[in-house]
Amino acid sequence: MANNTMTLNEAISSLTKLNESFYAYRERVDVNIDAFFLVTMTTIVFLMQCGFAFIEAGSVRSKNTIDILLKNLLTSLFTCVVYFFCGWAFAFGNKGNSFIGFGQFMMFDLEAPKYPLWFFHFVFAATSSTIVSGAVAERFEMVAYLAYTVLLGGFVYPVITHWSWDSTGWLANGPEGVKFKDFAGSACVHVVGGTVALIGMILLGPRIGRFEDKKTGRPAVPLKGHSAPFVVLGAFMLLVGFFGFNGGSQGSLARPGDGDTVARACVNTILCSGWATIAVIFCNKFFFSKNWSLLCSINAALAGMVAACTGCDALEPWACSIVGVGAGLAYFFIAMLVEKLRIDDPVDTVGIHCGGGLWGLIITPVVMKGGIIYGANRFAFLQLGWNLVGGAAIIAWSLVTMGSLFFLLKLAGKLRVPAEVELKGLDVLRHDGAAYPGETKEEASRRASKFGDDPLFSSGHLNILVQRTLKNGNHSPAEP
Amino acid sequence: MANNTMTLNEAISSLTKLNESFYAYRERVDVNIDAFFLVTMTTIVFLMQCGFAFIEAGSVRSKNTIDILLKNLLTSLFTCVVYFFCGWAFAFGNKGNSFIGFGQFMMFDLEAPKYPLWFFHFVFAATSSTIVSGAVAERFEMVAYLAYTVLLGGFVYPVITHWSWDSTGWLANGPEGVKFKDFAGSACVHVVGGTVALIGMILLGPRIGRFEDKKTGRPAVPLKGHSAPFVVLGAFMLLVGFFGFNGGSQGSLARPGDGDTVARACVNTILCSGWATIAVIFCNKFFFSKNWSLLCSINAALAGMVAACTGCDALEPWACSIVGVGAGLAYFFIAMLVEKLRIDDPVDTVGIHCGGGLWGLIITPVVMKGGIIYGANRFAFLQLGWNLVGGAAIIAWSLVTMGSLFFLLKLAGKLRVPAEVELKGLDVLRHDGAAYPGETKEEASRRASKFGDDPLFSSGHLNILVQRTLKNGNHSPAEP
Amino acid sequence: MANNTMTLNEAISSLTKLNESFYAYRERVDVNIDAFFLVTMTTIVFLMQCGFAFIEAGSVRSKNTIDILLKNLLTSLFTCVVYFFCGWAFAFGNKGNSFIGFGQFMMFDLEAPKYPLWFFHFVFAATSSTIVSGAVAERFEMVAYLAYTVLLGGFVYPVITHWSWDSTGWLANGPEGVKFKDFAGSACVHVVGGTVALIGMILLGPRIGRFEDKKTGRPAVPLKGHSAPFVVLGAFMLLVGFFGFNGGSQGSLARPGDGDTVARACVNTILCSGWATIAVIFCNKFFFSKNWSLLCSINAALAGMVAACTGCDALEPWACSIVGVGAGLAYFFIAMLVEKLRIDDPVDTVGIHCGGGLWGLIITPVVMKGGIIYGANRFAFLQLGWNLVGGAAIIAWSLVTMGSLFFLLKLAGKLRVPAEVELKGLDVLRHDGAAYPGETKEEASRRASKFGDDPLFSSGHLNILVQRTLKNGNHSPAEP
Repeated sequence: MANNTMTLNEAISSLTKLNESFYAYRERVDVNIDAFFLVTMTTIVFLMQCGFAFIEAGSVRSKNTIDILLKNLLTSLFTCVVYFFCGWAFAFGNKGNSFIGFGQFMMFDLEAPKYPLWFFHFVFAATSSTIVSGAVAERFEMVAYLAYTVLLGGFVYPVITHWSWDSTGWLANGPEGVKFKDFAGSACVHVVGGTVALIGMILLGPRIGRFEDKKTGRPAVPLKGHSAPFVVLGAFMLLVGFFGFNGGSQGSLARPGDGDTVARACVNTILCSGWATIAVIFCNKFFFSKNWSLLCSINAALAGMVAACTGCDALEPWACSIVGVGAGLAYFFIAMLVEKLRIDDPVDTVGIHCGGGLWGLIITPVVMKGGIIYGANRFAFLQLGWNLVGGAAIIAWSLVTMGSLFFLLKLAGKLRVPAEVELKGLDVLRHDGAAYPGETKEEASRRASKFGDDPLFSSGHLNILVQRTLKNGNHSPAEP
Repeated sequence: MANNTMTLNEAISSLTKLNESFYAYRERVDVNIDAFFLVTMTTIVFLMQCGFAFIEAGSVRSKNTIDILLKNLLTSLFTCVVYFFCGWAFAFGNKGNSFIGFGQFMMFDLEAPKYPLWFFHFVFAATSSTIVSGAVAERFEMVAYLAYTVLLGGFVYPVITHWSWDSTGWLANGPEGVKFKDFAGSACVHVVGGTVALIGMILLGPRIGRFEDKKTGRPAVPLKGHSAPFVVLGAFMLLVGFFGFNGGSQGSLARPGDGDTVARACVNTILCSGWATIAVIFCNKFFFSKNWSLLCSINAALAGMVAACTGCDALEPWACSIVGVGAGLAYFFIAMLVEKLRIDDPVDTVGIHCGGGLWGLIITPVVMKGGIIYGANRFAFLQLGWNLVGGAAIIAWSLVTMGSLFFLLKLAGKLRVPAEVELKGLDVLRHDGAAYPGETKEEASRRASKFGDDPLFSSGHLNILVQRTLKNGNHSPAEP
Repeated sequence: MANNTMTLNEAISSLTKLNESFYAYRERVDVNIDAFFLVTMTTIVFLMQCGFAFIEAGSVRSKNTIDILLKNLLTSLFTCVVYFFCGWAFAFGNKGNSFIGFGQFMMFDLEAPKYPLWFFHFVFAATSSTIVSGAVAERFEMVAYLAYTVLLGGFVYPVITHWSWDSTGWLANGPEGVKFKDFAGSACVHVVGGTVALIGMILLGPRIGRFEDKKTGRPAVPLKGHSAPFVVLGAFMLLVGFFGFNGGSQGSLARPGDGDTVARACVNTILCSGWATIAVIFCNKFFFSKNWSLLCSINAALAGMVAACTGCDALEPWACSIVGVGAGLAYFFIAMLVEKLRIDDPVDTVGIHCGGGLWGLIITPVVMKGGIIYGANRFAFLQLGWNLVGGAAIIAWSLVTMGSLFFLLKLAGKLRVPAEVELKGLDVLRHDGAAYPGETKEEASRRASKFGDDPLFSSGHLNILVQRTLKNGNHSPAEP
């Protein structure tokens, strides 16, 4: 086509065609790339399911390994079905109000370009559930776990995301145009998980023998997990998964600036994690124990990433030092406090997810671009205030709803396994059998012996405790 | 450039340039995104190699762990080389007929934009091979494994994909324009793997002691795997990998609707998996055992994903309930049947891959968009019929080709390891040594003792069996 | 818009708008896709951190498992912070010279579209560090490890990448326009890691008991790793991660041909890996041991991928046979040589990373497209020569800088743990405690006994050695 031979009409015709081609193409590419982006990020986030499973499996005694792995596996498999039935509807259904979504139940009327978002939000719902499983490990009934997963993934969590992340939600429409700042779910996912874990642990009580018995003077028994490598495997899967979690929270890759934000979110996530770990590993080494602690390092790294969720899209990299160090120390000291309060938290859920999450929620409006340290103006303070309001509302909602469920389950005697099951192990009495069945004859007979591999039974004190416990048939024998 | 100062000629010149820029750009983006999409999906699918390896490693006794891990590792490493030599050529070579591809051997003349497809199809070929390794675990000779991998990945599987997925294949060009509906390989990958596993297990015979000895009345010995956590690790890797497997099967991200289809495929995959697990875990708990079974849950989840392969691109989400529940139950009852028939299937390969795969192949034409339940028209039934024809052809082809190989290997005495090797374990006699060599002295001596950690040797019965077995030098002693 | 009713002015206006829309759109898509591509590839590469951790954890004795896992975990967490402070500045800072980058310290002034590159290069820096940890396992002080990680990731490695991969670097601007050919870091990452590992091992000396004591005639004790499955898990993570490593090294997905190159890089990577494994597994089986060796297969697969790094973007697939087979054999024989030289390399780091890396560096200019075998012209030989110059410079730089650090640490007595710690295990004396604490009472007492699970203590010879060692308080007692 030589330009000097084209008539005006031909040119106009060509232009019209090009106009159509371009806008059609642009829409096609945008839709396709958004879908690809969200599917890829969701798949990466799915690794976190594996990550939580192995952190928790490594942190329990071998007699409860199958139980905790099964619960983690079922979390995503049950959540996808309840999220299909009603989770999406209560979160982002197209006919809701500012408090709750409604509509598009069972994905009816859900237009195809929303499927990637459905996929991404379902895996977030599963993440909020799976956080809890480790906290209540080694003593939680399967029925209670399934009930809780269904309620959290199908109703409680979706409502929270409606508040924060739906355009009509009340937290997303604060006074004077302020929006709840929680980019990837420090509050919506992690504080929810940590809060539900906390109320669960309080209602459950600690594992038998976990704390000193003040009456008899029986000392606490360290109920250590059975495999540090599994904990590390889980930690690596979580580190990798968090890039999808925080990067994917941008939700789109087609708008101007999306790519920059995704990359910034990932960079800030690893930086927060690094700072948190450095702070805690040295703090622990020089002020508390003389060890280079693996578990503290892992938990700090996770707390750093949890705190990054609030504003990893909006921080300058230097600010990660503040977010990260604070998150690490928040985890470290809250975990100590929880222990002091005789709450039995096998994987430091409250320290990591409440500690890291709340620190992120509070500090981000201070140090993010446009935050208080850049100019202590009215809007910046409003942002901080609204984040506090949102955090408080989310905690209250989680406590009331899930606390009620746990309380009812406790009344019904379905919350905690009987003491005998706890002592012999959930795997043999509730599931397929031992997690490591290919043992030698001696090992098998030893493990099949009355109380399995539990360090509890190494002292005379405890045998008495156990006998009393089994006689009373009390659900949480060690704590009245 | 102010528009009112532009002459017609300038405008035409500008238009021509824009036309060229746009179409060049469109082609560039399409090619780049397709490559990125397929490379990413393939990388995710590669996690399934790790998944199968660990499901199988956890399901064997520790004395055979290195053997099964090595086989799984070599599957992809050998398959890539044979797929390079001839696998692609027989599948998608540019000079074939409707039965077999031909041309582009050794990737000569394969144009660059086809490399992403090569990468994706190679990893599918490796998947079909790796499915088999678990079924024949703990008794299959290494040489037989390598021979079978080369034949399956280099010839048998590529021919099947030519039938179904090459535009010239006979299954892709059915009567009245019907096409074999197998989006991601329920039949082409999973039924193939399951069928080859079945014929392999029949020709191999069960592991020593696996079933009751009807003559002597010796009871069956449960040959349990040595590590449930490894099975769960494998399951998570497969769950994650399946998103790449089913999402990536769209094969492109540049055409209109591609993104929607990829997301739909992923959503339906997890939903089928969820429904299958829910069906089986409750079915098992309330009607069969009183346990919450981890292994049943995992296998059901996999069967659901396998069934989703047929039509995860074309199902409305509600239909996943039918596809999933049916797949779960198909696995569950077929696995029982296989056990009844005294076929020794250590990882329930037939139930998962044949059961789930065939259910998907049959039910999808019924419940998919435009399927029989949407209108029982001639074309819908034709689709169902053609899927049955395709399934039957694929089973027959797999049985004849791979069955012949296994039969010849059996005649040559190269199919099954000698009984002594089986009893002492393949790791010490065929490979580097024990899988867990860093044991205490006592453990090491125990493991190095005559028959290792095999529960077989816990009863008097069996010692007699073993002595007889070793004396006779029979390859599959427990089954005459 | 009907074309025959549009005036010239309207058409020009429409054209102008379209022009603007198109060029704005093109820029937006290019930036977003580049970011998405690099973030995804980096996330995949991050799996290699997990891979190295588990290869190494499986290769050490259980008494040192926590130590090696912690070191691997801290590698990326410390590296991200030092890379933030100065790593990027010395590599790609915008005010450097041909020897070193400078500027953009702490990511100040780093424009947003560079964040994806930062993320990608940070994880490469972490990879070069983590390679070393396995080589010095079971005897390296934590403080030395942290010092070395900071120096390597913050200075030594960034300078090398400046030479090779910054547009101003001296290796990237060779004589007559030749550029150092090291696409994904055979030299820049792997040879660096291998070289630093070598000097580290030489200065550290072998683990106690590792080699025959020539004076007393005490035989070598095989210090086998404690878990083959962990080694395989690590290997799979590395295989998967390498696709991100080599595919992502294209650095962009927006330019014409980028997608093709990324796919080619991945295809060639797996082919090199396959060929290397096939060569070594048969070589070992038929000429050396009678075993099908798992460890040799894994190491060969890795060596093949390491060699692919040099030119996986520029090889025809057939050429992978040469690159791969050579890399496998280079690893195999170099590992033998290292053993002969009484250098204690627990995970064959030198064989894999120096052997594979140097082979790739040398053979690629010969067999790549446009290489010597395509036409032995001056430029092709110049390319080979410049690669040799680059390799030598990189080795020299790594040796001098990191060797100095190790030497100073040795002088200060901070390089190697005391013999008592080495014998009892680093986990109990330096970290949280045992890696598998959930043991039975008997196991726990056994493991807590004086020298743990060390095969050293199975012979009378060694008890004498150990007593002498502990008495002398010598840091590397077995090697004077």
